[in-house]
Amino acid sequence: MKIARFSHGGAITFGIIDEEERELVVLKGDPMFSGYDPTGERVPLGEVALLAPVIPRSKVVAVGRNYHEHAAEFGNEAPSEPLLFFKPNTSVIGPGDAIVLPPQSERVDFEGELAVVIGRIARNVAAEDADDVIFGYTVANDVTARDLQKTDGQWARAKGFDTFCPVGPVIETEFDVSAGEIETLVNGERKQHGTFDLMVHSIADVIAYASAAFTLLPGDLVLTGTPAGVGPIVDGDRVEVKVPGIGTLGNPVRSAG
Amino acid sequence: MKIARFSHGGAITFGIIDEEERELVVLKGDPMFSGYDPTGERVPLGEVALLAPVIPRSKVVAVGRNYHEHAAEFGNEAPSEPLLFFKPNTSVIGPGDAIVLPPQSERVDFEGELAVVIGRIARNVAAEDADDVIFGYTVANDVTARDLQKTDGQWARAKGFDTFCPVGPVIETEFDVSAGEIETLVNGERKQHGTFDLMVHSIADVIAYASAAFTLLPGDLVLTGTPAGVGPIVDGDRVEVKVPGIGTLGNPVRSAG
Repeated sequence: MKIARFSHGGAITFGIIDEEERELVVLKGDPMFSGYDPTGERVPLGEVALLAPVIPRSKVVAVGRNYHEHAAEFGNEAPSEPLLFFKPNTSVIGPGDAIVLPPQSERVDFEGELAVVIGRIARNVAAEDADDVIFGYTVANDVTARDLQKTDGQWARAKGFDTFCPVGPVIETEFDVSAGEIETLVNGERKQHGTFDLMVHSIADVIAYASAAFTLLPGDLVLTGTPAGVGPIVDGDRVEVKVPGIGTLGNPVRSAG
Repeated sequence: MKIARFSHGGAITFGIIDEEERELVVLKGDPMFSGYDPTGERVPLGEVALLAPVIPRSKVVAVGRNYHEHAAEFGNEAPSEPLLFFKPNTSVIGPGDAIVLPPQSERVDFEGELAVVIGRIARNVAAEDADDVIFGYTVANDVTARDLQKTDGQWARAKGFDTFCPVGPVIETEFDVSAGEIETLVNGERKQHGTFDLMVHSIADVIAYASAAFTLLPGDLVLTGTPAGVGPIVDGDRVEVKVPGIGTLGNPVRSAG
């Protein structure tokens, strides 16, 4: 089931996507908290702009260097434990929103990633129970100011700028990660491609590791790392991150100036 | 004015502290959003347990190595720009709550700090306007798993464990930072002492720098760095961070086991 969040009648609204009819089945509340309770109304998909399907109430937890080939791109080895960092919820934007290049950086990179949407309060979750705390999956772009990532040392700023976490277009609640793949295109040209079985640390292991340190809250996101092929984006570009079975997250890029 | 947050009659309640009468003047809402509107009720301070005076809706932004002598403790120089990192809001606890030592770490340190409470949406704030976005000041402890800080590289986990951000006891809205000082005691023995005029990067500069990267939201905290003298805490310790004019933030320490 694909869940979307959109603005409708002046209010933030959730809906289930009816792919055959190209319609949204409007729900009474946020299905993460209030279940699937349709209002009876249906809205044509073409009539609404989708928003980020979730805004984390606490954090976006991300994993660095979780594909061997991507780690090697910058001369690193994949770490023996998940390398965690945070992106703030203020960095989240939705499909179609612009990634804004900050004047502080001279090189901003795309990083297409599969994102896990946490659905339950998760603390000390065993890897074998990780599925129980997953609400669904979406697509994300871990936008990174590559130059500041190096000079700052800590990645908070380089990965935390406003607009540096595009998320969407929908949450798929029944996604099969084991058979999944991802690709990133810039202006229609494929730049990244990877299959999820190449992750160094599995999603279950990352959730176990992260939740042994900090409580994950419903709506928090776990970004699972990017495959090889990252590169810069510039003013006027359009980035698309595609995960077959979930959808395509497309965002234009523009300078702050 | 000193603002406290506490549990009263089964609800989270805000109050202004009447220091002469040792009472809380109960307010109708959160004064950050709804102003100072007393209900008419007063509660003796001794009858309530104070909570963290704020839970950030987005983030705790903290500054590393913001006192020269503390940077030198670990062989570092103070950075030329503020070294920012995030602590998640799930790490926040209140006065009297236990700091829980995680089994993953063999050395957990206290770091007493002055904390700024952001009161307005802050984006690209000039240093000279920083006061306009400050709601008040409180006291914080940037608890850190020192061993994991080194081995992880990124500080998200080492500084992000649940309970690793004690905050309180109150927010002082009229605090004079320029004349302020801080001390940290463990089991009554003074371990840290510093005056705020020794900060490498001023609060105004840190707010300008941080808000040029990410939007700060009302209730977000900015931890301003710790002076020299950090050291380990162990099961059974009691840490107190004191800022005259704001108050004393006291927390017991216990093992997770």
